[in-house]
Amino acid sequence: MAPLPSTAVLLRRRPEGEPRPGDFEVVRRPCPEPEQGQLRLEVLWLSLDPYMRGRMSAARSYAAPVELGGVMTGQAVARVESSRHPGFAPGDLVLADAGWCTAALSDGAGLVRLVPAPKPVTAALGVLGMPGLTAYAGLAEIGRPKAGETVAVAAATGPVGSAVGQIAKKRGCRAVGIAGGAEKCRLLVEHFGFDAAVDHRAPDFPARLAAACPDGIDVYFENVGGAVWEAVLPLLNGFARVPVCGLVSHYNATALPEGPNRVPEVMRAVLSRRIEIRGFIVWDFPHRAPEFRREVGGWLADGSMRALEHRVEGLENAPAALVDMLAGRNTGKVVVRVAPDAPD
Amino acid sequence: MAPLPSTAVLLRRRPEGEPRPGDFEVVRRPCPEPEQGQLRLEVLWLSLDPYMRGRMSAARSYAAPVELGGVMTGQAVARVESSRHPGFAPGDLVLADAGWCTAALSDGAGLVRLVPAPKPVTAALGVLGMPGLTAYAGLAEIGRPKAGETVAVAAATGPVGSAVGQIAKKRGCRAVGIAGGAEKCRLLVEHFGFDAAVDHRAPDFPARLAAACPDGIDVYFENVGGAVWEAVLPLLNGFARVPVCGLVSHYNATALPEGPNRVPEVMRAVLSRRIEIRGFIVWDFPHRAPEFRREVGGWLADGSMRALEHRVEGLENAPAALVDMLAGRNTGKVVVRVAPDAPD
Repeated sequence: MAPLPSTAVLLRRRPEGEPRPGDFEVVRRPCPEPEQGQLRLEVLWLSLDPYMRGRMSAARSYAAPVELGGVMTGQAVARVESSRHPGFAPGDLVLADAGWCTAALSDGAGLVRLVPAPKPVTAALGVLGMPGLTAYAGLAEIGRPKAGETVAVAAATGPVGSAVGQIAKKRGCRAVGIAGGAEKCRLLVEHFGFDAAVDHRAPDFPARLAAACPDGIDVYFENVGGAVWEAVLPLLNGFARVPVCGLVSHYNATALPEGPNRVPEVMRAVLSRRIEIRGFIVWDFPHRAPEFRREVGGWLADGSMRALEHRVEGLENAPAALVDMLAGRNTGKVVVRVAPDAPD
Repeated sequence: MAPLPSTAVLLRRRPEGEPRPGDFEVVRRPCPEPEQGQLRLEVLWLSLDPYMRGRMSAARSYAAPVELGGVMTGQAVARVESSRHPGFAPGDLVLADAGWCTAALSDGAGLVRLVPAPKPVTAALGVLGMPGLTAYAGLAEIGRPKAGETVAVAAATGPVGSAVGQIAKKRGCRAVGIAGGAEKCRLLVEHFGFDAAVDHRAPDFPARLAAACPDGIDVYFENVGGAVWEAVLPLLNGFARVPVCGLVSHYNATALPEGPNRVPEVMRAVLSRRIEIRGFIVWDFPHRAPEFRREVGGWLADGSMRALEHRVEGLENAPAALVDMLAGRNTGKVVVRVAPDAPD
């Protein structure tokens, strides 16, 4: 064993608005050999997720921001390259919070062994991983969909949204997906089996959304905020539930939108229609993980649930891919192939 | 039996902004004698409540608006004046949705017999009635206060707010009341036993509220909206709960406030601090009524819980009293003495 050549992406500057290439720095630095009790990971696939924009900012949130000069945070599928840890052997596949790098040391804490490895292995970062559990647990705990209800979700071709719609169908609901552009809308219906899809870029989007939800909306799974939320609000039925999972349309905003101040409109709807709005993150509901793996794993195995990936080649392209994802230019779960020989 | 002289207050015009005297009409019309299966009620006390502003408006809500030319809606303590109904005898005291009038016919549906009658009997309209149950059930179902937490409430000298603070104290919480003016703030601490009281009219209200909540706010019972809500939002802790019971500062508004649009700020707080915001009305939680009567009835009997009434003399003064209440010019639960000899 010897130091291993390695590349990492650091946060160099906190972005104002949309992140730019100069906010990141790609550095080469060797990864030392593991000491007793440690192991060295070779990163195969890196997951890109919207929450990363929040970690680049110093604003108050549920998790500490990435430090300036620190390695960008991120979950990865990795292979144990060498080990002086009794629990792991070279070649083991693991899920690791390795960050944006090609190699990392670990003391084993927090690693999840991928045994058996899902096919494709990147599913561990998407439909069978954090985004899938986010959809599953947020629906189960806050959305609480009942058969016959209408469940709407935005960013619907993303890994969370596509799982929300498909799980809603499994629960006997009408699933309405909102996405940007005709191609994504086609995928929602044809690939993912949504009952209806609505393009939020259409000039008459609010009217189209209303037409797609003839019985109103009982569960709105919020990933987006902004204009989509404004179109959803008047359609929410009495006792509607709104799990707030993400607000990707806000993340790059540098100021509040122009007036009027619509907070009274939101609160009036909440009161008069007894709406429940509740924020969550996936780690609030760890007790849902076993049933999630059993149910969603079964649906993937029998082909009744589908995933869609957007693959990016090479760690050095991760910064641009994150910018694209925040602007909705991806289609499906974004994963970065970090090791050239990363298995599917 | 013969027709009984009677006075009623009708809704003549839907108000724009603050209701005005011309929106109401006081009419005299005899109340017919009861037919078989009916009884005639003499109204003793009429309850005035903020929800009545909503019923004057045609906007979408959980209940139908009062019709133009219809009798204003309202709950009352009434005495059976004459009866051809087997379940009621003259002299019986009942709680009735009699509306703003001095006499009314009933077929008995929805009447609640006040046996034994609370002392004062007007408690049936306040701390032991709809407002008290609103506080009790909204806290229990949505607020879910835990010992050691901070519970804040606005309109805190009102019948809902004062019950919220006192029940929060019973649950081992720190109770912080928000009210308009020094006299109300004094009452909150000295009469109702709140830990702290903050005057929302003070120019440095947000800073005072923050100082009164050194550990943040875990439950904010929302009766008011507007500037109070804006001061509360930054103080809400992770996993805070916000039962939305009323928005009295909005009810007379004829337009949305000026910008910026603060909805993204609210939603970001909901997401990053996992806040739960949920609207309700008291009738959503009828199953809480028995324990409410047992617990709150016991506290009133042993003197460990208090109420405060604002009494108005004469039905013809009800319109002005409603306008005053919506502007916060009352102190305590507003009841109108409709019958000159109405018992305490």
